[in-house]
Amino acid sequence: MASLQEICERVLALISPTKEEVERVGRIAEALKAKASEEAMRLGLEADAQVYGSFAKDTWLRGEADIDLFLRIPAHVKREEMTEKSLKIGKAVVEALGGRWIKRFAEHPYVEGWVEGVRVNIVPCFRVDRGCWLSAADRSPFHTEYVRARLKEGAKSQVRLLKRFMKGIGVYGADIKTGGFSGYLCELLILRYGGFKEVLEAASSWRGGFMIDLEGYYRGREGDAVRIFPEPLIVVDPVDEERNVASAVSLHRLGEFIAASRLFLDRPSMRFFYPPPRMPLPPDNFSRALSKRGTCWVLILFAQIEAVPDVLWGQAYSSLKAISQFLRNQGFNVLREAAWSDEERLSAFLIELDRRKLPDVKLHLGPPVTSKESNAFLGKYLKNENTVSGPWISGNRWVVLLKRRQTDAVDLLKEGLKKKGSIGIRSRIAEAMDRYLEILVDEEILDAYSRSEGLKTFLTDFLSGRPPWLEEG
Amino acid sequence: MASLQEICERVLALISPTKEEVERVGRIAEALKAKASEEAMRLGLEADAQVYGSFAKDTWLRGEADIDLFLRIPAHVKREEMTEKSLKIGKAVVEALGGRWIKRFAEHPYVEGWVEGVRVNIVPCFRVDRGCWLSAADRSPFHTEYVRARLKEGAKSQVRLLKRFMKGIGVYGADIKTGGFSGYLCELLILRYGGFKEVLEAASSWRGGFMIDLEGYYRGREGDAVRIFPEPLIVVDPVDEERNVASAVSLHRLGEFIAASRLFLDRPSMRFFYPPPRMPLPPDNFSRALSKRGTCWVLILFAQIEAVPDVLWGQAYSSLKAISQFLRNQGFNVLREAAWSDEERLSAFLIELDRRKLPDVKLHLGPPVTSKESNAFLGKYLKNENTVSGPWISGNRWVVLLKRRQTDAVDLLKEGLKKKGSIGIRSRIAEAMDRYLEILVDEEILDAYSRSEGLKTFLTDFLSGRPPWLEEG
Repeated sequence: MASLQEICERVLALISPTKEEVERVGRIAEALKAKASEEAMRLGLEADAQVYGSFAKDTWLRGEADIDLFLRIPAHVKREEMTEKSLKIGKAVVEALGGRWIKRFAEHPYVEGWVEGVRVNIVPCFRVDRGCWLSAADRSPFHTEYVRARLKEGAKSQVRLLKRFMKGIGVYGADIKTGGFSGYLCELLILRYGGFKEVLEAASSWRGGFMIDLEGYYRGREGDAVRIFPEPLIVVDPVDEERNVASAVSLHRLGEFIAASRLFLDRPSMRFFYPPPRMPLPPDNFSRALSKRGTCWVLILFAQIEAVPDVLWGQAYSSLKAISQFLRNQGFNVLREAAWSDEERLSAFLIELDRRKLPDVKLHLGPPVTSKESNAFLGKYLKNENTVSGPWISGNRWVVLLKRRQTDAVDLLKEGLKKKGSIGIRSRIAEAMDRYLEILVDEEILDAYSRSEGLKTFLTDFLSGRPPWLEEG
Repeated sequence: MASLQEICERVLALISPTKEEVERVGRIAEALKAKASEEAMRLGLEADAQVYGSFAKDTWLRGEADIDLFLRIPAHVKREEMTEKSLKIGKAVVEALGGRWIKRFAEHPYVEGWVEGVRVNIVPCFRVDRGCWLSAADRSPFHTEYVRARLKEGAKSQVRLLKRFMKGIGVYGADIKTGGFSGYLCELLILRYGGFKEVLEAASSWRGGFMIDLEGYYRGREGDAVRIFPEPLIVVDPVDEERNVASAVSLHRLGEFIAASRLFLDRPSMRFFYPPPRMPLPPDNFSRALSKRGTCWVLILFAQIEAVPDVLWGQAYSSLKAISQFLRNQGFNVLREAAWSDEERLSAFLIELDRRKLPDVKLHLGPPVTSKESNAFLGKYLKNENTVSGPWISGNRWVVLLKRRQTDAVDLLKEGLKKKGSIGIRSRIAEAMDRYLEILVDEEILDAYSRSEGLKTFLTDFLSGRPPWLEEG
């Protein structure tokens, strides 16, 4: 077994930017800045063009450099003018350097471009004092300055190791789909604990309600922070005491990071940084594995979801949760569920039940005998063709044994999906389902298995149910 | 529809003792007293023989007179001497009047006899001051005196109506099998509310934590009573503020009384006082009804339980509850359960499940990822032949999908019944099961159906699940 030290050295050799890369990206960044200032002047916009983000902080991973070019604009400029002119500047800048671009949407639109293979984001923000935020992007310059002023030269590679580790175990990214750790959060963790190994050691003993507060804003009133921030991990933003840098981190991603940290410290391995790619099973093997599993799989296939990724995944997760809850309310035992989308053509929800059919009868709990409602209950069930037995009194309540109207999960789901909104399916998902919807159960899923490599991998992953870093390498 | 008034008059005509009966029972009671005093003197025991109970209070039902002859003995007499001599007196008295007798056991042994068709209980107790109780029977004289001094002539028939109503709906009797209302409790309810109809009207609006405190012992500190007495109905004993006269009344018997009171007031009917006897179904009809019911019945037949009724039923109920809990712990959905015994030859537990088989797999919830135990959990399930999928992290915990070892309720029950004590089966029940035990499922039950009329009625009752007073008459 290689030591932790050896593993980290091997990883660093793979992720530290090369001298050539640093020079090349630096050259592009300088050219972008110059061109942006020139364009701003031409448009009569007082804009200070600066590069922030991981390139500016020197914490990016080899081959993954993004240049975040911010146009800092005076607070008195109208939002409309800012948006319009900064889009013009972005387009002109990228085109001038021979790149291509598209318009992206966050709080306001911005330009994402590719110049000589490097991704560049050209984002407007207001030049404000700390705390007087006018848009979400206004904090970025402060974040970069905070980290740049404190992160020592040697600590930069520690940030890189932590980022690669988080990517390897699938918890890197504050986007809705991932629900994980941002790059800035990685940097703050290294600032707090000093190094990669130390972060993992600390995480191994994190408990609920854990807080990191580098600037001590909540010193002596830690309980306030726990009340203000509902999220499982609290890292108070050093530049904004009202913001939790870890607000995107979901409970299970936090758990995965903690668990992987412990396992890695116990038995260091390259697979935490570079998990072996999951190979989709050949259809025959998949079919055999599914049929001997003994559970019931329901695959809901539907059209592409027309939305930017954060909206797409936000609506997908909450709609999937609503469908599971709908099935649970009917009495089904949902073991697990997952959403998948190639973000282009096809989307899917997969739900695993312990079995497809409910029992023919159910115990229906009535009102307390002492309540006004008990007369209506008796009136309803004494002469009812669905009454199998009773009513009788159990404890202080009436109960009755009833025949179920519907016992098949798929039939129930088909009914439920006719009234999407009322069971909690969100607008974009409902639209996608209106365009195309197919429900497949168990062996029927094989028909869809080979329609997409992504779907194959998703279904193979679900079969294992195990994070890749748990598989023995 | 007959009015409530008419119904009550018809019932009273059936339950008021005849003049001939009053005279005959009175004559026997006087003879018993005289003979008991004579015998006590002969044995050198200072004993005051008095008749207490429903005969003394003139609240008994026609044809159901019991004579409770108490031998009040000075407090200084040793318990052993009291027991020995009172048994001798009891036997001699019954024999002298040409009756037959057996020895019964309560807190101490006593004689139960039959004289000219009338049941007599000859019970020793200590002559003590109120509150200085030496044995459980010492309160009886005080109860009788309390009621005799307060119950007006006209109220006696009201007590009789209430008793007959409670017998009719199956809630009369403070024995363990019934878990219902004692005769003394009926008398106190009439004292409190004035009449039969008024008791039913009051009961119609009883709520949880309801208390009757005739002597006002807890006036201004009602909360204390609720804390002291854990039972659902609290009726403070007028002769002992530390005793709840309604302590035997179970939650569901109380519920049945409340529900039947409401229904009777709404639509008075003779069937509340005299329910039509449940006719057991012919075996073919029973079999058809069972097979189309759609649930799973498990009948556990076992030998007679060697114990007095209160011990028999106490152990039967708690063992049945333990068996249900055992099945629930394994994942089964127990819809209903019931115990039956003819108290002579045969006993049975009947359990209704929504289905006989569990799913092949189950979700097994592991420890929080932050806990020490998570390593052991991973060690156990990562390489385990029963692991179907996972482990994965859900919320903050590890979970794993496991193959179940055993999915059949009957097989599981057979295993469980091998280690009776450890699943909570009580001693006398375990002994009876060691002598004879048979487990029948669904259609197999038909084999046992015709073995006993009592069993037939029990199974037919369970099929209906409805108290007889709910059936439309």
